[in-house]
Amino acid sequence: MEYECTPGEEIRWRIRRFQGLLQENGVAAALISQNADLFYFTGTIQRSFLFVPARGEPVLAVTGNLDRARRESRLSHIVPLKNGHWLDQTLAEFDYSIQGQIGLEMDVLPVRYYFSLRQDFPGADFRDVSEYIRQVRMIKSEYEISQIRKGAEILDDVMREAQGSIRSGMTELEVDALLGALARRRGHQGCLRMRGYNQEMFYGHIFCGRIAALPSSMETPLGGLGTTPAIAQGASFNVITSNEPIIIDFGVGINGYVTDMTRTFVIGKLSAELEEAYSFTREVKSFMEGWVRPGRQCSLLYQEAVELARRRGYGDYFMGYRESQAAFIGHGLGLEIDEYPLIAPHFHQEFQPNMVFAFEPKLVFPDVGVVGVEDDYLVTEAGVERLTTYDDRVLTIGLL
Amino acid sequence: MEYECTPGEEIRWRIRRFQGLLQENGVAAALISQNADLFYFTGTIQRSFLFVPARGEPVLAVTGNLDRARRESRLSHIVPLKNGHWLDQTLAEFDYSIQGQIGLEMDVLPVRYYFSLRQDFPGADFRDVSEYIRQVRMIKSEYEISQIRKGAEILDDVMREAQGSIRSGMTELEVDALLGALARRRGHQGCLRMRGYNQEMFYGHIFCGRIAALPSSMETPLGGLGTTPAIAQGASFNVITSNEPIIIDFGVGINGYVTDMTRTFVIGKLSAELEEAYSFTREVKSFMEGWVRPGRQCSLLYQEAVELARRRGYGDYFMGYRESQAAFIGHGLGLEIDEYPLIAPHFHQEFQPNMVFAFEPKLVFPDVGVVGVEDDYLVTEAGVERLTTYDDRVLTIGLL
Repeated sequence: MEYECTPGEEIRWRIRRFQGLLQENGVAAALISQNADLFYFTGTIQRSFLFVPARGEPVLAVTGNLDRARRESRLSHIVPLKNGHWLDQTLAEFDYSIQGQIGLEMDVLPVRYYFSLRQDFPGADFRDVSEYIRQVRMIKSEYEISQIRKGAEILDDVMREAQGSIRSGMTELEVDALLGALARRRGHQGCLRMRGYNQEMFYGHIFCGRIAALPSSMETPLGGLGTTPAIAQGASFNVITSNEPIIIDFGVGINGYVTDMTRTFVIGKLSAELEEAYSFTREVKSFMEGWVRPGRQCSLLYQEAVELARRRGYGDYFMGYRESQAAFIGHGLGLEIDEYPLIAPHFHQEFQPNMVFAFEPKLVFPDVGVVGVEDDYLVTEAGVERLTTYDDRVLTIGLL
Repeated sequence: MEYECTPGEEIRWRIRRFQGLLQENGVAAALISQNADLFYFTGTIQRSFLFVPARGEPVLAVTGNLDRARRESRLSHIVPLKNGHWLDQTLAEFDYSIQGQIGLEMDVLPVRYYFSLRQDFPGADFRDVSEYIRQVRMIKSEYEISQIRKGAEILDDVMREAQGSIRSGMTELEVDALLGALARRRGHQGCLRMRGYNQEMFYGHIFCGRIAALPSSMETPLGGLGTTPAIAQGASFNVITSNEPIIIDFGVGINGYVTDMTRTFVIGKLSAELEEAYSFTREVKSFMEGWVRPGRQCSLLYQEAVELARRRGYGDYFMGYRESQAAFIGHGLGLEIDEYPLIAPHFHQEFQPNMVFAFEPKLVFPDVGVVGVEDDYLVTEAGVERLTTYDDRVLTIGLL
């Protein structure tokens, strides 16, 4: 794999769509600074402000390393900036100013930076444009999809390694270390970005048995114990044993783009109840594969899946146990792991071609364990294409 | 290692000192929500708001999992909260209200949450108390120091493994995978928190030769290439070769507390110039060890070190090359890797007993490579105690 810079054409396509939303909504310009958004619109995360006027060429004003920013980004205007206070003078050279309706990423920008901008630019009427950014990022280009496919390929190998190497007596941490090392050697970027406040994610989650059923601080169906209440998610010192469901929920990031996959493994055999529960999660996934097409509502898919679980007696266990249930069954994938679309009750947008999402029906049985499956999908004109391709039955360890 | 909950006495000591600062500064109460601060003051990061009145018992209002919060935290008032809008009613049961000067963590809280709080609590005059929090967290308890010692011990093993296992022809990523897996098996929590906006950190940095000298988006002397401009730091596909400096800058987090250590390795031999440069960084470290004592100014240590580098002809290379120089030579360690004290030109506070900091003199030679060293220190009544103890000479690989 090589150190790959985002093509200029790709960047222009992204900026153009974002500018369309700024124009439609009467926003004069946006000032972008968060790493994932910076990378999306410029191809670099070197410390900078990206000024995107509703019309015209954007300007990347770099407070960090200018050479590296220029090598990595294909934008035409990349200029040095001593510090944020000088931004006005820098933009004036391009006949731009921070006046009128100026968009900020208010869902991620810390308050202190906002106050500092308000002080420096009294003529600006700042407003939140993070929703526009998320809408633009929701629809992937062929280039972006090709990045996601690379991660999906490595994820298949991660699951194969798990099936071949896990042994009874290993700790969850030992399995995590083994799979993390495999992914990293293959070029996993080292972290999976999340947009949500306080949401943190590293390589993956590995749990065995009842410990998998612990609720966590994550806004996800599973979280696990972790090694400490300071982190409170992921693998722990819990020991892998036979005849218990082993959950591996793993992500790989390649060139910024994240993928996400879950498989249920066992050493020996699951109980008939858990086998049946697992079959149900696979059935929900099959249902989704047949159901999704452009024009159908994301929230309706959520309802259909929840209703299916309720009818089959799994209502209390679906996506978490009772009050700990996560309010989604799928999430968009891209530069962040919590992108749009959400397959959630309040996300009423329709599926569109070139959305990419993870779908993860899971059942949580307190004091017993968890079973579930997760795959990544591309929405096509006809329906969905599955991007993560590893065998999605319960995976018996040691039989490879 | 076990899943360890913070002792109640420890929590009470932290709250008491914070309340002292609230009282001194006329703040009625603080509303805490960021993971690291939540963990510090409560012992849990389960989704919640922590209300700390200037006087009286704090209340943890939990929107996430109540059971887990109660198991992990030793606070006496831990109550359920349906969502943030209901906070007023919940606090009223304790005769508290969100009125008057209310402190927020404005350096990390996203703008959108701030607006939502302003709307929900029109009687509040919100102000930034993040500096008070950072001041309280700067002085460590014996309990905290014992956590940091555990990480330091694992770091010694990481460096030993590096010295024994690195081979010419491995990629930086392979070394990263190897050392990350070792740390994780031993209980590394899986991420190293940073407080700064856009600052991201995972296990560590491994670089060989000239690639180590690339500036990155991190506010640190070194960053490396990474696997992609989307992340732009850390190990890359660059291949380890003989007679080049190999930098391993690694962190381990145990029970929330992070440690940070750098060693310079070589397969074969470094040039006389690089050997000499390395000796200089070790000399700066020795100088610091003799210089620091309670009452001496952090900023003065920075000046002394920079002046030493200048006098010895290393002025252009110290802590980064020319305009890419990091504006510090050390940083506090605790629940975040960018804590106070900073050994930096604008940080004029004095060293105090029970501060813990990393000290990292490094020299960056463009197109050649980097040499440097980093150890973690506890400030004592008499001076400093070194917490990371591995051999700090240039480490020749394959001789163990």
